[in-house]
Amino acid sequence: MRIVVLAGGIGGARFLRGLKRAAPDADITVIGNTGDDIHLFGLKVCPDLDTVMYTLGGGINEEQGWGRSDETFHLKQELAEYGVEPQWFGLGDRDFATHIVRTQMLGAGYPLSAVTEALCDRWKPGVRLLPMSDDRVETHVAVEWEGERRAIHFQEYWVRLRASVPAHAVVPVGAEQSKPAPGVLEALAEADVILFPPSNPVVSIGTILAVPGIREAIADAGVPVVGLSPIVGDAPVRGMADKVLAAVGVESSAAAVAEHYGSGLLDGWLVDEVDADSVARVEAAGIRCRAVPLLMTDLDAAARMAGEALTLAEEVRTA
Amino acid sequence: MRIVVLAGGIGGARFLRGLKRAAPDADITVIGNTGDDIHLFGLKVCPDLDTVMYTLGGGINEEQGWGRSDETFHLKQELAEYGVEPQWFGLGDRDFATHIVRTQMLGAGYPLSAVTEALCDRWKPGVRLLPMSDDRVETHVAVEWEGERRAIHFQEYWVRLRASVPAHAVVPVGAEQSKPAPGVLEALAEADVILFPPSNPVVSIGTILAVPGIREAIADAGVPVVGLSPIVGDAPVRGMADKVLAAVGVESSAAAVAEHYGSGLLDGWLVDEVDADSVARVEAAGIRCRAVPLLMTDLDAAARMAGEALTLAEEVRTA
Repeated sequence: MRIVVLAGGIGGARFLRGLKRAAPDADITVIGNTGDDIHLFGLKVCPDLDTVMYTLGGGINEEQGWGRSDETFHLKQELAEYGVEPQWFGLGDRDFATHIVRTQMLGAGYPLSAVTEALCDRWKPGVRLLPMSDDRVETHVAVEWEGERRAIHFQEYWVRLRASVPAHAVVPVGAEQSKPAPGVLEALAEADVILFPPSNPVVSIGTILAVPGIREAIADAGVPVVGLSPIVGDAPVRGMADKVLAAVGVESSAAAVAEHYGSGLLDGWLVDEVDADSVARVEAAGIRCRAVPLLMTDLDAAARMAGEALTLAEEVRTA
Repeated sequence: MRIVVLAGGIGGARFLRGLKRAAPDADITVIGNTGDDIHLFGLKVCPDLDTVMYTLGGGINEEQGWGRSDETFHLKQELAEYGVEPQWFGLGDRDFATHIVRTQMLGAGYPLSAVTEALCDRWKPGVRLLPMSDDRVETHVAVEWEGERRAIHFQEYWVRLRASVPAHAVVPVGAEQSKPAPGVLEALAEADVILFPPSNPVVSIGTILAVPGIREAIADAGVPVVGLSPIVGDAPVRGMADKVLAAVGVESSAAAVAEHYGSGLLDGWLVDEVDADSVARVEAAGIRCRAVPLLMTDLDAAARMAGEALTLAEEVRTA
């Protein structure tokens, strides 16, 4: 079975770990969000790709969900001693190595997809990890901050400001001119199932869908497309997805996110049991819906969620 | 008193620390060797400048004489896990910060002299540290290695091979086309004394002198030029200076190094007491010479050596 998963960071990575257990023989391709990539200290940092790679490769800091295990922060402390900005982004000494290797390879002319493959040669995540695009796409957020309206990098909004200022718009700068990375459209065309993990529907999966050709390839694939709600009981399972949903005019609920994707894209949708009353609303929108436990409290829970998604995909296929 | 010092790495840095104690009110400008600079992992590394900066700024690893105190090597370990070469150069996590800041500033268009000044804003070495040139000069060594004659970067010869293969020539690639960094010729023109610490006469001071204009500015300054022998009892005090001296056809002795500089450049020369019998030979070459203790066993010893150098300079001036 060939499964393609569109993934953001922590939620996507933990879901993928569950999926690998639920479908150990599946051939899994991950299309990773690169809209939250950022250049820091002259280095190219790809937080979502790295979170997937570290999580599946056994190098993640399990507690925080991002960054490396057994990490130190001496380099970052020294940069602060030099007065270098920004100081709000947490790069550890081990993590820096990934960004240095990536930056050096990009500087030598390799596209991000080739660099990601080379990094995965070490981590062996057990999936094929593709960036959504080799082109630079950068998610900016229009905010009101210190009395002014301005557009800032997503990471500045998310990490520095903790989404604490009003967001008026989310713009994947460069997406319109970008092309899917090599392998992305092919993987979608050959997929048996396409899954949207409980990643952020705006700044993770939404950004991937903003790359011209990807949304169309999913719709044209003719295979079940099943997603899992990142909203449980009207609040995001983790992170601050409600803030960016508001910015794009979508209410923070499991049903509203399904409607936001729409039946043109989505065939099946899993909501948490606490949102069982929204199943009817989602099905009314033409999307098959089931209520199951959606909290990835551990690997077993994530595997059960992945299993439910595959079961729903099978229901869609045979419907 | 305005003192200009041509300096390499460890020996130069330790001498400078002694000089600051011996002449606390002096205005000291250091012209640092950049011929051993190297690009590693896409980063610009300037070992000699950093050794001077860390030593005088209180951040040096005292035992090894280079690199940072309280250092860890997690980033380097991770680069090795990625299989990235070279693995023979010891960059620590704290040290990496310096190279990242430098590389970012160079990438933004600042010349190395401005970058060095910015780094020294933090370290406050108590001297004005100038790179010999803002242009790229790279010392290569022609060696016989694995049956072949080839030219390798000085660091590869020095750090990787520990000078263990025969060296046939030392070439400061790019020196002929280089210009002294801003402030270098001015500092020499305004100096009251010019000192050559016990740094490597070939790959440290020799490289600085290879930048067109510097040798002439020293000769034209019309002030005492005094050096200290890096060779004590026919062996280098530290390092492997004898290997590169052989490559340029100079015998490994205190007197031979003085003759190599020559009376056109050097007015005074300090040899160690064990080399007292070479004083006559040096003076016969037209260079005033004294035998004094030349082992920088501690800061006091370095200060006494610096004091002896200044005393000899005064003798030259009033002769």
